[in-house]
Amino acid sequence: MSPRALFFDVFGTCVDWRSGVAREVAALAARHGVDVDAAAIADAWRAEYQPRMQTVRDGSRPWVTLDVLHREALDGVLAGTPLAGVPPEDRDALTLAWHRLDPWPDTVPGLTRLRRRHVIAPNSNGHIALILNMARRAGLPWDVILGSETARAYKPLPEAYLRNVEAVGLTPGDVMMVAAHNDDLVAAGACGLRTAFVVRRTEYGPGQTTDLEPLHDYDLVADDLLDLAGLLDP
Amino acid sequence: MSPRALFFDVFGTCVDWRSGVAREVAALAARHGVDVDAAAIADAWRAEYQPRMQTVRDGSRPWVTLDVLHREALDGVLAGTPLAGVPPEDRDALTLAWHRLDPWPDTVPGLTRLRRRHVIAPNSNGHIALILNMARRAGLPWDVILGSETARAYKPLPEAYLRNVEAVGLTPGDVMMVAAHNDDLVAAGACGLRTAFVVRRTEYGPGQTTDLEPLHDYDLVADDLLDLAGLLDP
Repeated sequence: MSPRALFFDVFGTCVDWRSGVAREVAALAARHGVDVDAAAIADAWRAEYQPRMQTVRDGSRPWVTLDVLHREALDGVLAGTPLAGVPPEDRDALTLAWHRLDPWPDTVPGLTRLRRRHVIAPNSNGHIALILNMARRAGLPWDVILGSETARAYKPLPEAYLRNVEAVGLTPGDVMMVAAHNDDLVAAGACGLRTAFVVRRTEYGPGQTTDLEPLHDYDLVADDLLDLAGLLDP
Repeated sequence: MSPRALFFDVFGTCVDWRSGVAREVAALAARHGVDVDAAAIADAWRAEYQPRMQTVRDGSRPWVTLDVLHREALDGVLAGTPLAGVPPEDRDALTLAWHRLDPWPDTVPGLTRLRRRHVIAPNSNGHIALILNMARRAGLPWDVILGSETARAYKPLPEAYLRNVEAVGLTPGDVMMVAAHNDDLVAAGACGLRTAFVVRRTEYGPGQTTDLEPLHDYDLVADDLLDLAGLLDP
């Protein structure tokens, strides 16, 4: 049986966060006349992502948007760099770089094809406004925007999958989680969702060492979203 | 300044609930070999809508989906009709008629045109699954599905507008509420949203007596959604 709905991880699976963030870091540095390793700053910023979400997951603080977490992390990320002196308004603007990420080349044609036979929805830790702004800019044809804000929980907590399955009126077995990250799929699978691993070899740049292959037994393994469409709807 | 986002009432403003529900009531009656006034049953069912939502608004019960409210109302609606004896499974199936409503002829072309320059979102008392199923069937090209489920409040409570404005990262003045109902627009306007009245003269059938004209001073008044597109984006 074909899944009724496909839930997609977004950062890394559908869009290239590293290049997009580095592009805006480099533009800011150019405006300030300084030289930076923009990709290293993007990597350092992303490295703050999981530990900061953990403070929400473990109940230390209430649910907040990724804009809040990204902005809080940014001061520490810039501290040791030539951008350490940029004013708060530049930091606020740079935080919105996460709304302006480009899709991988196969993402829009792949989603467009998958949408013919399946409901397609992001199930991202990004909040509604971020995913909406990204979708408008990049042309991602979501049927509905789900994620941490509709679930009020960050992945990989079970609620982040199960509440969104319920929101679309389906059961976990009707839904397939699509992600480039093993931990996301293991968590989704434990909730009863079906799973598809999509390999993204350069999400973390040319030297990527993680998530280069499926580490568990998923329902499908695809090279990209067009390949996934071919496997699901041949 | 043009609104960044347009929020749409759905039942009556975008889709023709009366014809759609009556069609499925008539089909059920035909299967059971009985004669009914299908439009009258649709009207009676819709008449239960506001009082039943009121029990959620006033805190008598927690937020529930419209499927729950529609199903609870249906037994009383059918009680005095030739369909009084139909089994629970037929009632459950008929409740989903509210997911299968047809758009007015101008709705899809109007939304498609408005989407070029504005974020378009339903802000309906319908829940996510209902609005999603309706959108997939009718081809409504929403950017994001908002409504009572994302706000956890039913219109016309202020939270039903303001929480959804916040969810898309905007301020009330950036958003225009579009509706065929005066009460919806008065409530939205009181929250600081801009307002557009769209006249739907046959939402309640040929004898409609309410909402035939704007009763207050709205930002725009339009004959339909294509007319609205012409007014907003000439």
